[in-house]
Amino acid sequence: VTEQPLRIGIAGLGVVGGGVVTTLQQNAGLIASRIEREIQIVAVSARNKSRHRHLPLGDATWCDRAVDLANHPDVDVVVELIGGSEGVARELCETALKNGKHVVTANKALIAHHGVELAQLAESQRRVLAFEAAVAGGIPIVKAFREALGANRFHRVAGILNGTCNYILSAMQHRHQDFETVLAEAQRLGYAEADPSFDVDGIDTAHKLAILTSLAYGSAVDIEGVHIEGIRSIALQDIIFADQLGYVIKLLGIARETEQGIEQRVHPCMVPSHSALAAVEDAFNAVEVEGDATGKMIFEGRGAGAGPTASAVIADIMDIARGSWYRPFNLPADKLQKRNRAAMDDLEVACYLRLSVIDRPGVLAEITSIFRDEQISLHSCLQRARMPGSVVQVVLTTHETRESALQRAVKRIGALDAMTDSPRLIRIENL
Amino acid sequence: VTEQPLRIGIAGLGVVGGGVVTTLQQNAGLIASRIEREIQIVAVSARNKSRHRHLPLGDATWCDRAVDLANHPDVDVVVELIGGSEGVARELCETALKNGKHVVTANKALIAHHGVELAQLAESQRRVLAFEAAVAGGIPIVKAFREALGANRFHRVAGILNGTCNYILSAMQHRHQDFETVLAEAQRLGYAEADPSFDVDGIDTAHKLAILTSLAYGSAVDIEGVHIEGIRSIALQDIIFADQLGYVIKLLGIARETEQGIEQRVHPCMVPSHSALAAVEDAFNAVEVEGDATGKMIFEGRGAGAGPTASAVIADIMDIARGSWYRPFNLPADKLQKRNRAAMDDLEVACYLRLSVIDRPGVLAEITSIFRDEQISLHSCLQRARMPGSVVQVVLTTHETRESALQRAVKRIGALDAMTDSPRLIRIENL
Repeated sequence: VTEQPLRIGIAGLGVVGGGVVTTLQQNAGLIASRIEREIQIVAVSARNKSRHRHLPLGDATWCDRAVDLANHPDVDVVVELIGGSEGVARELCETALKNGKHVVTANKALIAHHGVELAQLAESQRRVLAFEAAVAGGIPIVKAFREALGANRFHRVAGILNGTCNYILSAMQHRHQDFETVLAEAQRLGYAEADPSFDVDGIDTAHKLAILTSLAYGSAVDIEGVHIEGIRSIALQDIIFADQLGYVIKLLGIARETEQGIEQRVHPCMVPSHSALAAVEDAFNAVEVEGDATGKMIFEGRGAGAGPTASAVIADIMDIARGSWYRPFNLPADKLQKRNRAAMDDLEVACYLRLSVIDRPGVLAEITSIFRDEQISLHSCLQRARMPGSVVQVVLTTHETRESALQRAVKRIGALDAMTDSPRLIRIENL
Repeated sequence: VTEQPLRIGIAGLGVVGGGVVTTLQQNAGLIASRIEREIQIVAVSARNKSRHRHLPLGDATWCDRAVDLANHPDVDVVVELIGGSEGVARELCETALKNGKHVVTANKALIAHHGVELAQLAESQRRVLAFEAAVAGGIPIVKAFREALGANRFHRVAGILNGTCNYILSAMQHRHQDFETVLAEAQRLGYAEADPSFDVDGIDTAHKLAILTSLAYGSAVDIEGVHIEGIRSIALQDIIFADQLGYVIKLLGIARETEQGIEQRVHPCMVPSHSALAAVEDAFNAVEVEGDATGKMIFEGRGAGAGPTASAVIADIMDIARGSWYRPFNLPADKLQKRNRAAMDDLEVACYLRLSVIDRPGVLAEITSIFRDEQISLHSCLQRARMPGSVVQVVLTTHETRESALQRAVKRIGALDAMTDSPRLIRIENL
């Protein structure tokens, strides 16, 4: 170890910040030997000083305001672990870059909303803006797109990017409990937030997807262009029917480049039970990438938590310590194109439909004639527990068809007299 | 694109070399935009010039001898795709590095046998020696160890590293055919070499494992320290019994750091049917890494073939084009320690044993008393198709026990009069 230590300032000492501090101490010798340099925490900032007495912070300076780290003369790298797309986190990162400091962040909301501007700032100062920890926790997927898979044109990116959702869907599947029950338990265990909407409504997945899309397709991050549906509407019945049909339900983020433009969508999907993504359980994340040279590739690991996120944050710091410099989104930030959005209506997709109908003569004829009108071809039809006059579940799967036709059919079916609940539609992805 | 093109010379235009040339041409614009620089093939060398007329080689100089590329004044990077641990490939890489050129290679045998010397040479010249393509084809596992997972201490590395073996084992499992039948077909289809021993005897896996071990544990590459068993002895019966017991048989390379030293072993393993590695089918490769910060992580993709290998080779070239420099094994080459080898005898492992015995009174008592003598505790016992006087298969699984005791027991059981064939032992890895 010959070079000067790399001096970092950490903003935010919650789960992730604590993990970074602890891992840096625990593996200090190992890390220093790998980069031939020491990493020194010279300053920290957190909401509550007294709460962090147990952390091995040595004689790091305490800053009352996070932004002070950006102005601290001894800080080479600002590590932003506060979160949120605006306010303190944004101000801190902007100021740090303007002041010629490198920035490492785990903040997906910030990068999804302001990644391009921040990248321009970083490039203009020739500083690093690194955000490996913002997507899929410990999985080095940002580096994979930025560096390791650079020879490829990508056919598709599909990921399980939110551990909370995957935990909930896995638990529903294995324990046969409904969404609300599992969510309540996840909240008790600390796997889900008190206000779970960021996770279960798909927003967190959309943030991560938007970042991956930009890396894969060289487009400007376009969070507004992501079609987002969450998992609240998934009923236990859907999970059981999926199983019978040979599928597992996962919340996926999917990006593709089509003739119409860039397609970005987050919604529950049925994936074949034997597929790699179906086997991703609990709070694990996974990203499936299909490149023209490399073919199908899967990266799986823990998508959140102190250790995995710290691993990604520290890897970014180590790259800086080695003197690496790169453009945050691979292409020069001002060459990231605003691309057309492929309209959701133009999607060609197979789907599963569950209809709660009163079991009486002619209902199935009404339904199937709507499919005929919309030229949707059915793949299978399942009707259980037939009892004239009572409510039955009719489960249909379609061949690949246009989303707009599906939506019209769902609307018309929903308006039928025999329907006792709105139709449930889940798209099928044959990965 | 402002910088000078990066000029490469390619030695070897077989499947991989052809893939590199084709991919570089096909995705030329994309690649150049990602590195803001062009990659130019300025010279090539191959055994048979006329055979490669179809490749888009432009006005690249043909060199009669591969080593000429190392002396070519216009070549910045030598791409060695010849193979073999000695001879032309070794001479080419050494000369290129001595002459101040970067080297990118897909040659696992060369790196497994001479990686440390070559790394010393590269470091002394401050040139890159890159070998992503040498391990697990398109999977960026070398970069993952060298960079992305640098914050971690590794508990274990376990990989399916040879596509031919995985193809054969998958086919045996799904088609219920025996080893010889599947091998013959794989040879017909070009998935296996005419002389398959490098693959099926585990040598190729050992080369790759030795490289990963060095990256993970900072030890000098120690190919002689790898315990190697191949898959020739795997009978269809073992695969069927494995399935009944809830396992799948895979050829794994496993590395760990134990109190005794570095453990490196390549042998067929039974892995739980629901584990991630069990689901890796056909010619796919996968590496499971367990780090202290990141937890369990799986990287899966195609381990061989033109496209995947070209993807890895070109990624290495792109890193050079960006100006990256790094030590080939992360630590300085002269700090890679020669570490003690954990003796295979000290391994604690569970195992499956299949015994072909003449079914007569007292045989099972003889067998079980040997286990008692060696203090091996049995987990399960399966005996099928009982017909007094005929040969039956007795299948036993043990709890975790010492390898040396297992080997003594196997030897003693093998010497019993009732045995009609030598005992088959397959270790169980509960990944």
